[in-house]
Amino acid sequence: MHPTRWGDPAEAALLPQATRDLVELVLGVRDSPAIESVELPGSSLSQEVLAELRALLGDDQVVLDDDSRRLRTRGKSTPDLLRARAGDLTDAPDVVVRPGSHDEVAAVLDLAVRHRIAVVPFGGGTSVTGGLVARREGFAGVLSLDLCRFKALREVDKVSMTVVLEPGLRGPEAEALLAEHDLTLGHFPQSFEYATIRGFAATRSSGQSSAGYGRFDALVVGLTVATPQGTLELGSSPANAAGPDLRQLVLGSEGTLGVITAVRVRVRHRPTVKVYEAWQFDSFASGSDAMRGLAQANLLPTVIRLSDEAETAINLASQSDVGGAAPTGCLMIVGHEGTDPELVEARRGLVTGQLEKLGGANLGEERGRAWEAGRFHAPYLRDSLLDVGVLVETLETATFWSNRERLYDAVKQALTATLGEKTLALCHISHVYETGCSLYFTVAAPGGDAPLETWAEAKAAATQAMIDAGATVTHHHAVGSDHRPWFAQEIGPVGVQVLRAVKRELDPAGILNPGVMVP
Amino acid sequence: MHPTRWGDPAEAALLPQATRDLVELVLGVRDSPAIESVELPGSSLSQEVLAELRALLGDDQVVLDDDSRRLRTRGKSTPDLLRARAGDLTDAPDVVVRPGSHDEVAAVLDLAVRHRIAVVPFGGGTSVTGGLVARREGFAGVLSLDLCRFKALREVDKVSMTVVLEPGLRGPEAEALLAEHDLTLGHFPQSFEYATIRGFAATRSSGQSSAGYGRFDALVVGLTVATPQGTLELGSSPANAAGPDLRQLVLGSEGTLGVITAVRVRVRHRPTVKVYEAWQFDSFASGSDAMRGLAQANLLPTVIRLSDEAETAINLASQSDVGGAAPTGCLMIVGHEGTDPELVEARRGLVTGQLEKLGGANLGEERGRAWEAGRFHAPYLRDSLLDVGVLVETLETATFWSNRERLYDAVKQALTATLGEKTLALCHISHVYETGCSLYFTVAAPGGDAPLETWAEAKAAATQAMIDAGATVTHHHAVGSDHRPWFAQEIGPVGVQVLRAVKRELDPAGILNPGVMVP
Repeated sequence: MHPTRWGDPAEAALLPQATRDLVELVLGVRDSPAIESVELPGSSLSQEVLAELRALLGDDQVVLDDDSRRLRTRGKSTPDLLRARAGDLTDAPDVVVRPGSHDEVAAVLDLAVRHRIAVVPFGGGTSVTGGLVARREGFAGVLSLDLCRFKALREVDKVSMTVVLEPGLRGPEAEALLAEHDLTLGHFPQSFEYATIRGFAATRSSGQSSAGYGRFDALVVGLTVATPQGTLELGSSPANAAGPDLRQLVLGSEGTLGVITAVRVRVRHRPTVKVYEAWQFDSFASGSDAMRGLAQANLLPTVIRLSDEAETAINLASQSDVGGAAPTGCLMIVGHEGTDPELVEARRGLVTGQLEKLGGANLGEERGRAWEAGRFHAPYLRDSLLDVGVLVETLETATFWSNRERLYDAVKQALTATLGEKTLALCHISHVYETGCSLYFTVAAPGGDAPLETWAEAKAAATQAMIDAGATVTHHHAVGSDHRPWFAQEIGPVGVQVLRAVKRELDPAGILNPGVMVP
Repeated sequence: MHPTRWGDPAEAALLPQATRDLVELVLGVRDSPAIESVELPGSSLSQEVLAELRALLGDDQVVLDDDSRRLRTRGKSTPDLLRARAGDLTDAPDVVVRPGSHDEVAAVLDLAVRHRIAVVPFGGGTSVTGGLVARREGFAGVLSLDLCRFKALREVDKVSMTVVLEPGLRGPEAEALLAEHDLTLGHFPQSFEYATIRGFAATRSSGQSSAGYGRFDALVVGLTVATPQGTLELGSSPANAAGPDLRQLVLGSEGTLGVITAVRVRVRHRPTVKVYEAWQFDSFASGSDAMRGLAQANLLPTVIRLSDEAETAINLASQSDVGGAAPTGCLMIVGHEGTDPELVEARRGLVTGQLEKLGGANLGEERGRAWEAGRFHAPYLRDSLLDVGVLVETLETATFWSNRERLYDAVKQALTATLGEKTLALCHISHVYETGCSLYFTVAAPGGDAPLETWAEAKAAATQAMIDAGATVTHHHAVGSDHRPWFAQEIGPVGVQVLRAVKRELDPAGILNPGVMVP
């Protein structure tokens, strides 16, 4: 990916005139181009260390050129992009290495311990919480451990419906390999096109179809992890009572405890039937109650998401190509997938009956398909808005149903209190459980002269509001370095002690992604 | 419960004549009554310590009488019962204390650290893996921390469908409190009548209706834990990406990391519709394939279990009161529960269609109801068999579908190789996942002169067979002290390091259930 922008330049979104007009009216615009040609700081690693790395991995797998280092500098949060756009590349790694096997990863870790080099595992580079920004102090340098050579589908067990995936596979690469066996993972986060299997596991990713296929942590049945203390091999069975579930320590560990080198996941047959529908509800509250009703009746479809009134209005304004009168209230997308048309239809019938009973009006499939077509496109729009000086970012949380409204109000209030009344704070629910749901906010505000500082203040206020409301600081974006102080509040001092003890045990030299996740 | 037998004496099972005849024919019988009046070893704790405990909790909550100590000696595995029947009560705790609040639990832990007393949390006393047998060496004594005063239903959130249960509630007590709110936990392990909420959480219990309601670890959304380092308060949301899931370290920790003092669980509406059916399959393989088909089509009913040919034959022999010709092959029990008759019927129709397609023959509801009526009764039958000198015990494991047959053969082979050709080794599958299933074995063999040694040899061989087959050593009975050596093989040396590090951090004095779980 480009260091200052999301994804493929060919896909870049020209701001639709309607959106630009709206933005100009509400927030004001001013051209804010990125500074593209910046000198990187030189690599701080000695020739001796580089020679040792080359001897270990081969010359081609030890990469020092500016472009490679630039592309592995930070992730894709708005602050990451703003820093890169301002020409600040101080977090660039000193070297990029590309091991080709589990043993080579282990050897790199060993070398890093000996030379006290910070190691940042790198996959798709799509972190939005500072997960790729390792602390430099106290280290001889920062090494980006790129897993781009781990691209194999290693085992296919169609009886157990499990496969072993290598961690460097990006979403579409994994799906293409699985498609050869008529299988799918069904994991489609917004970062799907770039993010990797390792990242999905290391951050407890959740995707747009997770209601049907399960969160990534629920898909993982086994893990192989290279740690400075040796190899962890976990996952003896689908479920068991053999002590604490150590897989759940690795999931969400964000490269701080080890490097995941293989992931055994549950797969499904590739769906042959896909129906996406739009539904309309009077209000966010009634739509949310309907989602709760489905979840608690064990009738969740494959995809379910609900936009609040503000997001509904904005999304529909940009869907001017979809015919018919724009609906008011709140838009819900409901998707059904499967391999057996009869079963899909039977389940769809049950869901439709419940949604009607719960106050929904079916708007048909056109807007459902429009959502599906654009499901990975929002980050491109962000780049276009940053280009015109608008601060755009997302944040997300989750809580129990009875606390949903309080949390929603608290986060919106924190955002407008810090960013001003002109702020657009849109929200949707995209992940639903029997006991609660996620809330995903998209925020747009005038960037002003100091957008980084402006956002830092808003983010801090919103995150503290989540903690004060008894919710989590992240439903599916992970802790990174950005959420660390609030994460400590979330798990409390004894929880922090436990994490630090595990970190100390597996990584006594502290070389693995220092400054990330572990408080 | 009685120290040498299961449950309520009034429920004791007289061995049906048909079963006794069968047992006599196959295994031989000889009267083997339990020695009932045995002197307990005196309490090793000093008057000073006892006075301090009394000052802390009140005189009534520090219990030293023989009966109370005898009832908290070990659990209910066959070796536990054999030792008790032989008059061996050397593992009796020195004192039983009954704290009444989280703070009192914390104070007891503090006292135990200062005086170096081993602490065994006690709930229902139903462990079958030596989970209540703390190591004495190096300690001033053993304290049984009875949670019998933690009996409240503390919070009821019918919007989120969660409640907070205190840990000392037994299964039926929790269900009775929930029934007042028209709710159910739906957790029905065979130990349901005696086991407690704390035990369910601490051992990752799984129940007979877990296909529909979920394993206990899936029901838990939050935990409060008293540790020697302070209080752990976990569970900010239904699911999140905020680092590793620390709840999963407490679940399965078997009292070695702290004492669970409150559990927030997901609940369901109490079912008003319950249908239990029996189905017949030609073979264990075809029945197992049908279960797999249901699981992988996302069509699991509330209850599903399948007996192998041997268990089917034995069970039907003892169901002579159920009319009709006894079916051959393998018996499957399928249960559907819910609150909406239409939804239950719709789902039942889909399941029925699939089971017929997969080779099943519906035998109607009578045998299904017979299974439901006797679902908690097997442990009584074990007592009656031990009375006539027959060694009876159960063991269980789980694996992925493609490994099921290999595991089944390996465990059976290990049992008959060590116990002899006369051994009855029955098996059923009672827990089913998309990727695999559990295997639950019931073993009966002549007890001989040294039944403890005989069983120890068989258990070791069977457990090693599980490890060698790549499976888990326990699907729902936990590690205890019995599975510890093989558990270390299952999680490997780095996994052992992690567990020891967490243990050392939370319980540096090592007073919590020493000798249990942590290798």
